[in-house]
Amino acid sequence: MARIVQKYGGTAVTTPDQIKNIAQRVVDSYNEINDVVVVISARAGETNRLIEMANEMCPGQEGREYDLLISAGEQVSVGLLGLCITSLGYKVKSYLGWQVPIITDSLHSRASIENIDPARINTDLQMGAIVIVAGFQGIDGDGNITTLGRGGGDTSAVALAHALGAEQCELYSDVEGIFTADPAVCSDARKIEQISYDEMLEFASEGARGVQIRAIEYAKKNNVTIHVRSSFSSTAGTLITREETVMEGVVVTGIVYDKNEAKIAVLGVPDKPGVAARILMALADADISVDMIVQNVSQGGLADVTFTISKTDLDKAQSITAKIAEELQAREVIADRNISKVSIVGLGMKNHAGVAARMFAALAFNNINIQMISTSEIKVAVAIDEKYTDLAVRVLHETFKVAV
Amino acid sequence: MARIVQKYGGTAVTTPDQIKNIAQRVVDSYNEINDVVVVISARAGETNRLIEMANEMCPGQEGREYDLLISAGEQVSVGLLGLCITSLGYKVKSYLGWQVPIITDSLHSRASIENIDPARINTDLQMGAIVIVAGFQGIDGDGNITTLGRGGGDTSAVALAHALGAEQCELYSDVEGIFTADPAVCSDARKIEQISYDEMLEFASEGARGVQIRAIEYAKKNNVTIHVRSSFSSTAGTLITREETVMEGVVVTGIVYDKNEAKIAVLGVPDKPGVAARILMALADADISVDMIVQNVSQGGLADVTFTISKTDLDKAQSITAKIAEELQAREVIADRNISKVSIVGLGMKNHAGVAARMFAALAFNNINIQMISTSEIKVAVAIDEKYTDLAVRVLHETFKVAV
Repeated sequence: MARIVQKYGGTAVTTPDQIKNIAQRVVDSYNEINDVVVVISARAGETNRLIEMANEMCPGQEGREYDLLISAGEQVSVGLLGLCITSLGYKVKSYLGWQVPIITDSLHSRASIENIDPARINTDLQMGAIVIVAGFQGIDGDGNITTLGRGGGDTSAVALAHALGAEQCELYSDVEGIFTADPAVCSDARKIEQISYDEMLEFASEGARGVQIRAIEYAKKNNVTIHVRSSFSSTAGTLITREETVMEGVVVTGIVYDKNEAKIAVLGVPDKPGVAARILMALADADISVDMIVQNVSQGGLADVTFTISKTDLDKAQSITAKIAEELQAREVIADRNISKVSIVGLGMKNHAGVAARMFAALAFNNINIQMISTSEIKVAVAIDEKYTDLAVRVLHETFKVAV
Repeated sequence: MARIVQKYGGTAVTTPDQIKNIAQRVVDSYNEINDVVVVISARAGETNRLIEMANEMCPGQEGREYDLLISAGEQVSVGLLGLCITSLGYKVKSYLGWQVPIITDSLHSRASIENIDPARINTDLQMGAIVIVAGFQGIDGDGNITTLGRGGGDTSAVALAHALGAEQCELYSDVEGIFTADPAVCSDARKIEQISYDEMLEFASEGARGVQIRAIEYAKKNNVTIHVRSSFSSTAGTLITREETVMEGVVVTGIVYDKNEAKIAVLGVPDKPGVAARILMALADADISVDMIVQNVSQGGLADVTFTISKTDLDKAQSITAKIAEELQAREVIADRNISKVSIVGLGMKNHAGVAARMFAALAFNNINIQMISTSEIKVAVAIDEKYTDLAVRVLHETFKVAV
C-alpha cells in the first residue's frame, strides 16, 4: 500500500467536466494505491473574481479580512470535488486549511507553513476515506485565516506530503513534465525522467513552468519526491528528487527561456559605491523584482548599470529609474522591451570547464549577440534580442547534445 | 454605551454600492453606540451560484462537503464588508461561524445553534473593534462546517444578540418594518411600532416578510428584542418584543395575505380514520408543506379532504394526491391554482368574542366567498379566490379600524 499526495492546479479545475475528470483520476489512484490525499487550488478565475470585487469596492486593501475573503476560492473547489467524488460512491473527508490544521505564521497573503498536524488525516486514511485539502491557505496561532501567496498551492501539497510521510507528491498541471527544451520551439526536446532539486530550482527560476520555486525549496529541504505530470494524460512525468550520480557525458540537462524580460540601462553614472544599490532599492520598494544585473566601468571613470526586469514592470521601472538617474546625474537611461533570457542548466557543469565558452561560441556562430550574462554553479543565462530566442534554444539544444 | 447586533440580508449586500452603504451605516452606528456586531448573509445570488455549480456537476448531493461549499457564500460578503469598513479607517474583526465559534448540532444544511462562545467577540468589542460575523453557518462538535438552512441568517443574528447580551437585534432588509397591511394594497396601512413575538409569529406564518420564523421563535424563547428596519432608510422600524398590555380597543393588529397558495380537494373518500394522514404523509415525504387543512363529511358517509400548499408545489402535490386518491377510491381530485390566504392577527382577539364572525360578515357583505378557514388564539385565516385578495385586505383593514 502506497500513500501519495496529488495536487491539481486552478486551470485543471475550471469546468465541471474537468472537475469530474479529476474526481475519476483520484478514484482510480485510490483503487490502485489506497491512500490518496488531494490538494486543490481555487478554480482558475475564482480568486481573481474575489480580488476584483474587493478592488472595485475599496482598492488597496490587504491583511486579515483580505485573506478571509480570497480563501473562499479554494473552499469552492474543495466542496465541488468532494461532492463529485462522493457521488461516485467513495468516502470523502475534505478539509480547509484551518481544519487540518495547517499552521502558518501571521504574515497575511504571504504566510509560511510552520507545522501540519497529520493526526486527523491519518485517521481518515485508516478509515478508507479519500482526503481533500484546500491548498494555499492555513491558520495562524490566533485562529486567523492566512494565505500563502504565490506558489502557495504547490507548497501546501509538498508540505502535506512531508507531514504525512507520503512516497510522492504529484503536481498536476497542463504540462506533461519537465523537458530538455520547450517542445514547441525545439522538435528534438524530450521529457526528462528525473531531475535534481537544484537543477529544477534553476529551471523554474529561468522560466520553466510546472512547479513553483517555493515548493521545490520546501521539497529539497525535506527530501520530498515531486512528480510533475499532466492531468490530461496518464503517462509518467518528471521526478524531482535528491541529486543522483550524474550520468557520464551529460553536461547540460536542459535549455530554458523566458521571453517576459525587459532591459533598462543607466549609462554614464559616476563610478561610486552605492549607485546600483540605490536604483535597486527604489525598485524593491515598488515591489519590482530585478533579475540579471551587470555593472561595468566605461570611459572617463563613468559606469553603466544594466538590469532586466519583467516586461510587465517596464514602464513603472523606467520612470523610477529615470528619477534616480537624474539625481545621480547619469548621462542617459535606455529601455529595451525586446529582450529574452536563454539559459542552460545542468549538474554536470560543475565538473566541466568551458561550458560557458562553448555556449557563447555557438551563439556567436549564429550571429546572436549576447547582451548580458549571469551564471551559477549549474547554470549559464544570457540576455539576447527576443527575436533570436527560438533559434538560440535550438542551437544550444543541438550544441550540448541534450536530446541524446 | 449600548450594544447592538445588526443583520443585513443578501439583497442588501449585492452591489458594491450597497456594501459601501452598509459599511457607512455600520460606522455611523459605531460612532453613536460604540458596540456594534454585524451579521451578514451571502450576497444575493452567490449561494445559488454555488448550488448550481454543484448540481451541474453531481446533482442531488448534500451533507458535510455541501455545507463546506455553500458556506463560502457568506465568507465573501464578510470579507468584502470587512475590507470596506477597514478602508474607512475603523478597526475590524471579522469571523466565520467556526471562528466565533458558533457551535451547532451536526444536521448538515439544517443545523441548530447549540451554543455561542462570546469571549473572543467581547474582547474585540472592548478593544474598540467593529465585529463582523458570517450568518447562516456554524461548526459542529467535530469541527465540521454546518449551515443552518432556511432562516439561518436571522437566527444567527438573534442568537448572537442573546449570547452577547445586546440590547437589540436589528434585522435590516428592504422592508421598512411590519405594517398593519401591505401599503401597496391598502393606502391606510401604517407601520406598527411594536408587536409581540406571538403576533409576529402569526404574521410571518401568514405571509408577512421581514423576519424568518425560526429567528422569532429563538428571540421569544430568549427574550431578545428584534428591530425590523430598512437598510435604505434611517427611520425606526418595528420592534418585536415580549407581550405588552394590549391597548384598549385594539383587537386586530394587522392584516396579512399570501397569494402563493393553491388548493387541492379530494372529494368522496370513505370516511375512515387515517385518510387525511395518508395524503399528508405522502406529501411530507416529498418535502411539500401543507398549510390549511379541512375535512368534512359529505353525503353518504363519504368525506372531502381539502388542503392548501404553495403554488410552486401544486403540480407535484397534485400527482402525488391523485395516486393516493386512486388507492383510496376517492371520487375526484380537484386542484385550484387561484387561491389566496387572508388573515387577521391580534393579541386583542384573545379577549374579544365574535371577531371571526365580524370578519366573515364583512367578507360576505362584499360578496367574497370563504373557501376554507383556519384559526388560532390570535389569528383567523381564510382562503378565498385570489382575485379578491386586495379587496379583502382593504375591507378587513377598514372593518377592524386597524389604522386608527
